[in-house]
Amino acid sequence: MDLHQWPIEGRSKMPPVERPLPGPRAKPHLAVPVALDRDGARPLVAQLVEALREAVLSGLLPAGERLPSTRTLAQDLAVSRTVTAEAYTRLEAEGLLAGRSGSGTYVARLNRAARRTGTAPAAPAPAAPDPAQAPPRPAFALRTGETGPVHEGSDGWARAWRATARTAAPTRYQDAAGLPRLRTAIADHLARTRGLVCAPDDIVVTSGTTQSMDLVLRTLLRAGDTVGCEDPGHPVVRSLIRVHGLEAAPVPVDDDGARVDVLAGRAHAPRLMHVTPSHQFPLGVRMSVGRRLDLVMWAREHRSWIVEDDYDSEYRYNGPPLPSLAGLDRERVIYLGTLSKVLTPALRCGYLVAPGGLPRRIAELKDIVDGPLSWPVQHTVLRMLTTGALERRVRRTRLHYARARTVLREALEPVADLVTPTGLEAGLHAVLLLADGLDGARVARRAAELGVEVAPLSAFRHGPSPTEGLVVGYGGLTPDDLAEAAALLVRAIAEHRP
Amino acid sequence: MDLHQWPIEGRSKMPPVERPLPGPRAKPHLAVPVALDRDGARPLVAQLVEALREAVLSGLLPAGERLPSTRTLAQDLAVSRTVTAEAYTRLEAEGLLAGRSGSGTYVARLNRAARRTGTAPAAPAPAAPDPAQAPPRPAFALRTGETGPVHEGSDGWARAWRATARTAAPTRYQDAAGLPRLRTAIADHLARTRGLVCAPDDIVVTSGTTQSMDLVLRTLLRAGDTVGCEDPGHPVVRSLIRVHGLEAAPVPVDDDGARVDVLAGRAHAPRLMHVTPSHQFPLGVRMSVGRRLDLVMWAREHRSWIVEDDYDSEYRYNGPPLPSLAGLDRERVIYLGTLSKVLTPALRCGYLVAPGGLPRRIAELKDIVDGPLSWPVQHTVLRMLTTGALERRVRRTRLHYARARTVLREALEPVADLVTPTGLEAGLHAVLLLADGLDGARVARRAAELGVEVAPLSAFRHGPSPTEGLVVGYGGLTPDDLAEAAALLVRAIAEHRP
Repeated sequence: MDLHQWPIEGRSKMPPVERPLPGPRAKPHLAVPVALDRDGARPLVAQLVEALREAVLSGLLPAGERLPSTRTLAQDLAVSRTVTAEAYTRLEAEGLLAGRSGSGTYVARLNRAARRTGTAPAAPAPAAPDPAQAPPRPAFALRTGETGPVHEGSDGWARAWRATARTAAPTRYQDAAGLPRLRTAIADHLARTRGLVCAPDDIVVTSGTTQSMDLVLRTLLRAGDTVGCEDPGHPVVRSLIRVHGLEAAPVPVDDDGARVDVLAGRAHAPRLMHVTPSHQFPLGVRMSVGRRLDLVMWAREHRSWIVEDDYDSEYRYNGPPLPSLAGLDRERVIYLGTLSKVLTPALRCGYLVAPGGLPRRIAELKDIVDGPLSWPVQHTVLRMLTTGALERRVRRTRLHYARARTVLREALEPVADLVTPTGLEAGLHAVLLLADGLDGARVARRAAELGVEVAPLSAFRHGPSPTEGLVVGYGGLTPDDLAEAAALLVRAIAEHRP
Repeated sequence: MDLHQWPIEGRSKMPPVERPLPGPRAKPHLAVPVALDRDGARPLVAQLVEALREAVLSGLLPAGERLPSTRTLAQDLAVSRTVTAEAYTRLEAEGLLAGRSGSGTYVARLNRAARRTGTAPAAPAPAAPDPAQAPPRPAFALRTGETGPVHEGSDGWARAWRATARTAAPTRYQDAAGLPRLRTAIADHLARTRGLVCAPDDIVVTSGTTQSMDLVLRTLLRAGDTVGCEDPGHPVVRSLIRVHGLEAAPVPVDDDGARVDVLAGRAHAPRLMHVTPSHQFPLGVRMSVGRRLDLVMWAREHRSWIVEDDYDSEYRYNGPPLPSLAGLDRERVIYLGTLSKVLTPALRCGYLVAPGGLPRRIAELKDIVDGPLSWPVQHTVLRMLTTGALERRVRRTRLHYARARTVLREALEPVADLVTPTGLEAGLHAVLLLADGLDGARVARRAAELGVEVAPLSAFRHGPSPTEGLVVGYGGLTPDDLAEAAALLVRAIAEHRP
């Protein structure tokens, strides 16, 4: 299993350009027309990205086609070179283009229906950890979902709250969809950081991903409907499916993400599929472009919904953030964003982006069952978005978390033969795949005795676990604490050496 | 109809003490034993109130019995006179005792099963206001639920938010029931202001009454179950019943509150009954003690739940706040509190108090579908509770709202023959009952044309409206704006003089 490698087809499995078409020109011009609307509200980069994406996906620009240089294209289109360079970077991140140093940029080869299975043969499920055997409160919690502190002045957090304290709070009930100015700021933020173009009215501000998902399920599904979900996946999704009286349809995950072939092979199509394409939770793989297209096609064909849970895409350490699945399809994809990873899960602020009349329906439901998110919270997040404090915090904490993953990786060296860390390209957690003969639940139990809380991978499975592993959240610890906790974890692993 | 009079049996309808039993002693001692636990955590006042309440309700202290003076009882029990005086005051507010100046304090005569109907014969429902005819944005909104501003320094609001800005925010997911320290502060607050004794573990902090009600319905009921609700009543309750797929069982309201005889007469007992006993929404009546006892007996007999929605009891202008229904029965009553009226509805903070294992079940559900309330909001409310800022704000705003209702009452004098204001003893809204021949929806439509938003009473009805009226929220306007808005409303009423 090779889950920790760059999971895009073109890069890790087959070179994107095996035989670049040798063009007659030294500086090829673009083979398809691109019309840019210079008076419109949409940024030129977004327009160019969309035009090129359409050309690639429709086959107008075939795999292997060499693209003009950023300079040539900029001249052809009469735009600045920044625009073309940024568009290429984004499309490379999406996996639609591939750059080779010295040789130019090419259309990547897309594997539209990968059928490989990345998982080992099924094994019996390990016993769940017995809480009675664990000490009541471990010294270190290697728990997913925890973040670094947010109170220091350098984050702009305290400043934003003080600004809220100075501002007259409204005295009446507000729009349950969220403050219009905050939704505008979120739309700007999504266009800038995720290549996702949407209007403020497409957005509903929520208390986070769990409420977003709850509102989506309440609005779109009824008891007895089926929900597809990644296996392994987030336990909260399983819990939501249970409390709504829905059927779970677990879909296995391989190196390319959720296996759409298994999903498509079901006799009854789930009404909705929950995925984490940017950084699969918990395995950490990125859904390949081919798999993304398969998923969107499946949803269109069955008129099913896709929920894209984009919980930690701000933290990617090897290259720019990936574009969203919702950027590929605005009809069937509902995008969930959260500030839990960027700020703190104790803030409770997130949002959803949905197509058509859905945001209005969801806001109407939210009005009846909850109301808008707290005004001071909305006002503070608005302030952090518009002053740039949020982006500064992301940049600062990205360095912090990058250091933390280095600490973790180095600490694991003594058991390098027993552990394969995966999912470290992004986010605030890793999965340690365990060598044959090691039992994740037993290692986790021993780690708890030593004072370290860590979850076995089996806890994230719907059924029997074919692979053994540990899910390690490293976001909430200082480097020193993390080194100490990892050393104890290494001891627990080494003690179980087969 | 006489809805605006003090609705307790003993005071308005029959003198509580028609023939006080002439005791042989000039200074009677208490005829029942009272045991006080001086080492326990519960305040002596609460213990004495409970002992006396039990004695009255069980019949040990019969109606008309004269009680010892506060001084004598204090000597007998070896407590300070403050304790006995406070206990009498609370029991008088409950309607269990009645004081006559110069003559002492007596056990009130309770009418346990009043069967009077306070409503006029049914009339056809008026047409709903046509939004197309109203101007797009009235200059003044006489809307229920709006409050005075909360940003000034004198409220401690800004200071509390600044304190939150200075405090390190937690970086992990929190207890969905709310911060333990906040729940402790709420329990103290409820004991002090509402005579409701509960533990922090009985409390779940929510985003307000709508979420509290949503969580209660999701935890206790299933689609198809029946919910009793006051008619007229809060539209949000009707909406919640609808989105949950529940059956509504409207229960009419008379001078004593919701008519428990109608509720008890139903072939199938509702699983839950929603009431606003302190200040019926919107009519403003207070549920009488006899009616409260009937309701509790009904709930015990049918193992049904009572939801006590205590949305504005902080604002009572003629006497102390009333004890809660939950203080009468801690087994079947779920108490809902909110800070929407005391601070602002834009804050989104409330709480529920529930018996037995219910708070834990509700918090578990909240964890799955939402999570805890935002930490900065919880921390700020905790700060306002523990520094006394919240109680200072209540005292200050009570004066403000008392002035507002005087302004409203005086402005209505030119149409005194057409309008009977009710519900002005408490809260931030009044109901103007209209004379025969006046149509509330038509008056509201005309008021909207003149620039004043006001709701007809019929908008709060489940079925045809037997009485015509207007529901006037006066909390959100300055005295000058209120005077101007009321003058326009008076003009709209006068134009429809029959």
